[in-house]
Amino acid sequence: MNAEIIAAGSEMLTPARIDTNSLYLTAELNNIGVEVVAKSVIGDDRDRLAAAIRRALSDSPILILSGGLGPTEDDVTREAVAQALNRKLTYSGEIAKALERRFARAGRKMAGINMRQAFVIEGAAVLPNDRGTAPGQWVEESGAVAMLLPGPPHELQAMFERECLPRLAGMVPRMAIRTLSLRVAGMAESDVDQIVAPIYKKYENPATTILAAAGEIQVHLRARCASVAEADALLAEVGGPIELALGDRVYSRNGEPLEAVVGGLLRRSGATVSVAESCTGGLLGERITSVAGSSGYFAGGFITYSDAMKVEMLGVSLDTLERFGAVSGETAEAMAVGARRRTGSTYALSVTGAAGPEAPSGPAGNPIPVGTVYIGLAGAAGARVLRRVLFGDRQRIRVFAAQMALDLLRRRMLGLV
Amino acid sequence: MNAEIIAAGSEMLTPARIDTNSLYLTAELNNIGVEVVAKSVIGDDRDRLAAAIRRALSDSPILILSGGLGPTEDDVTREAVAQALNRKLTYSGEIAKALERRFARAGRKMAGINMRQAFVIEGAAVLPNDRGTAPGQWVEESGAVAMLLPGPPHELQAMFERECLPRLAGMVPRMAIRTLSLRVAGMAESDVDQIVAPIYKKYENPATTILAAAGEIQVHLRARCASVAEADALLAEVGGPIELALGDRVYSRNGEPLEAVVGGLLRRSGATVSVAESCTGGLLGERITSVAGSSGYFAGGFITYSDAMKVEMLGVSLDTLERFGAVSGETAEAMAVGARRRTGSTYALSVTGAAGPEAPSGPAGNPIPVGTVYIGLAGAAGARVLRRVLFGDRQRIRVFAAQMALDLLRRRMLGLV
Repeated sequence: MNAEIIAAGSEMLTPARIDTNSLYLTAELNNIGVEVVAKSVIGDDRDRLAAAIRRALSDSPILILSGGLGPTEDDVTREAVAQALNRKLTYSGEIAKALERRFARAGRKMAGINMRQAFVIEGAAVLPNDRGTAPGQWVEESGAVAMLLPGPPHELQAMFERECLPRLAGMVPRMAIRTLSLRVAGMAESDVDQIVAPIYKKYENPATTILAAAGEIQVHLRARCASVAEADALLAEVGGPIELALGDRVYSRNGEPLEAVVGGLLRRSGATVSVAESCTGGLLGERITSVAGSSGYFAGGFITYSDAMKVEMLGVSLDTLERFGAVSGETAEAMAVGARRRTGSTYALSVTGAAGPEAPSGPAGNPIPVGTVYIGLAGAAGARVLRRVLFGDRQRIRVFAAQMALDLLRRRMLGLV
Repeated sequence: MNAEIIAAGSEMLTPARIDTNSLYLTAELNNIGVEVVAKSVIGDDRDRLAAAIRRALSDSPILILSGGLGPTEDDVTREAVAQALNRKLTYSGEIAKALERRFARAGRKMAGINMRQAFVIEGAAVLPNDRGTAPGQWVEESGAVAMLLPGPPHELQAMFERECLPRLAGMVPRMAIRTLSLRVAGMAESDVDQIVAPIYKKYENPATTILAAAGEIQVHLRARCASVAEADALLAEVGGPIELALGDRVYSRNGEPLEAVVGGLLRRSGATVSVAESCTGGLLGERITSVAGSSGYFAGGFITYSDAMKVEMLGVSLDTLERFGAVSGETAEAMAVGARRRTGSTYALSVTGAAGPEAPSGPAGNPIPVGTVYIGLAGAAGARVLRRVLFGDRQRIRVFAAQMALDLLRRRMLGLV
């Protein structure tokens, strides 16, 4: 069953405001098997809002409106729904009295303008609001329902939970939704899709989506079934082959970020890691230490931007720097080996590269293309270097390089490289 | 003039995702006097998206679409706009070649599926994408325009600024909007407001907003007038007294981040800086080196999580660590002095603190409250230490600590401390 969400209010269309009610409502609706197929924010314009309501109710059996139930003239949700359904608004003496009591309890005189909140759409059920003044409304029309809920999140959430969910239970077939999220490092979106599309394309349920995030691809599967057991079985049926096809490229299957996965591997094997960073300038260390408890396995880091610092802090030889340049596999290796020796860590990671905007010169005076990155890994079994040319601006290159470094360590600890 | 924004993509309809592109786009449109009257998120459903596009273009002369331009089958924005306008999609050999070149430059083979991105709506102008593979499109229809922009924010923003804003300038009546943005470090939002409210409250134009961001407060003034000269005069009339009242707390007045302000001061005085980080784990170095050209003044950094590394890498004495503990002003000072000596930099900054979630023990076995942070600054004139207890989670404490360190260096270079 499908739902749409509309937030009413011009203030929600300013650059600094976000409609967070729709996130709460989406989570609650998904939990009972209802899909949100569209959501919108509409300013304080009764005609535009009424047109959107009419359209939504003809497309989807469930429409949730938030906001625009207050006492002022720019609160037009009641009027817009009445207009869309071609119904009257009637004054409710009962609501008016409840409002007056509420103000009296707070020792305040009620401004007359609040009486706007006492108008009810013909045929609507009134939803009491125990956290604010604006009552909600539940209106049915030819098998569809529109819910009018107040904008403040704590009012909306209490009302939705107490008044709407029980009513929805009578409308919505019972349904369980289970999800599986796989995170993949070191592959392009199109390459992941080529591998997994032949598997997921055969299924409409679970729904599979592929997302590109910073330095990684995420594969999301979402199964909707009559029972949890059925949904889990379906996830296993489709997700299993997808995981198998992606193999060791999958670094986490429950949303855990790469630095936490690497941290877990280090902790379990009693190993430690140090870092030597040039173009990432501290980003790699920052990610590793963003994990609570990382002090147990992080041995230290060196941020060596200049040749001189690579020599002094890491013991990279001047000869290596002169012959191969700072952005080279040889320097990356020497940086990692140096960091490992200076900290006594089990592993050491290094990053050196051209993050831009200027392309640096190589040892022969040739320009090194922006985006060229070398990742070094040193361990007891020796050193290893990766080279990649990354797209994008300075920030993106740095983020991808840090991701590559973490993934290289993960793969080494799993015995894959 | 009115605009609507539509974000395409089922992933944007999940409980954890927010369409932040619309916030950026709203700010940019407001700047040129365009009002956003509605925005929506529509899933990967071509018919539903096409209907929304048709409706939006009949209501508003400007429609911006974000997302759904990728290579996979659930990227349907191109098809939906073609369907809404009843136009054909034609294959562009030129785009295809550019895509191939892009992949070749990175030494990668392009998956055939990427060719979906080479289709252009009949009559559309192609908007080059220098930060990703999906080109944008600009389509006009009976006096209205639809812009198709990629979903990743850094791609969308670069394309909108370079390709769309100049084209919009020819459509939108000229209204001069001028803004002044003041960034303030080291003050609480309510303290800033108390100082500046008596000044800005007297004016509806410029509109003044106060925003709390990570480790700083921003004061935004926005004047809308018939001419630039008028708007500038108004900004000076209100902004001048606000700046005067905030004094040297204002570190930038044009959106420049603190690390760039500090970088400019270092560059202009021919000075260099190094860092020694404990609880920030590389974040301070990462911020300093995020500025293009920072290699000119960044002398290097040490990430020293453990006591042993503080001794070995920075020369902090065991005696200091034992007597005062790792989270102490004495250790912060010794770390900064050590980093300065080892790198030969003009200044050195250090951070040591308890970022949580566990509260570490002090030298006497007493627990040190989570959020306690010491910032050290060493220079030719001697060392200085700041102590603060910060609220919030691990991430927030680290971000605030890095901000404090940068601001301390700024104030030292300006002769304020």
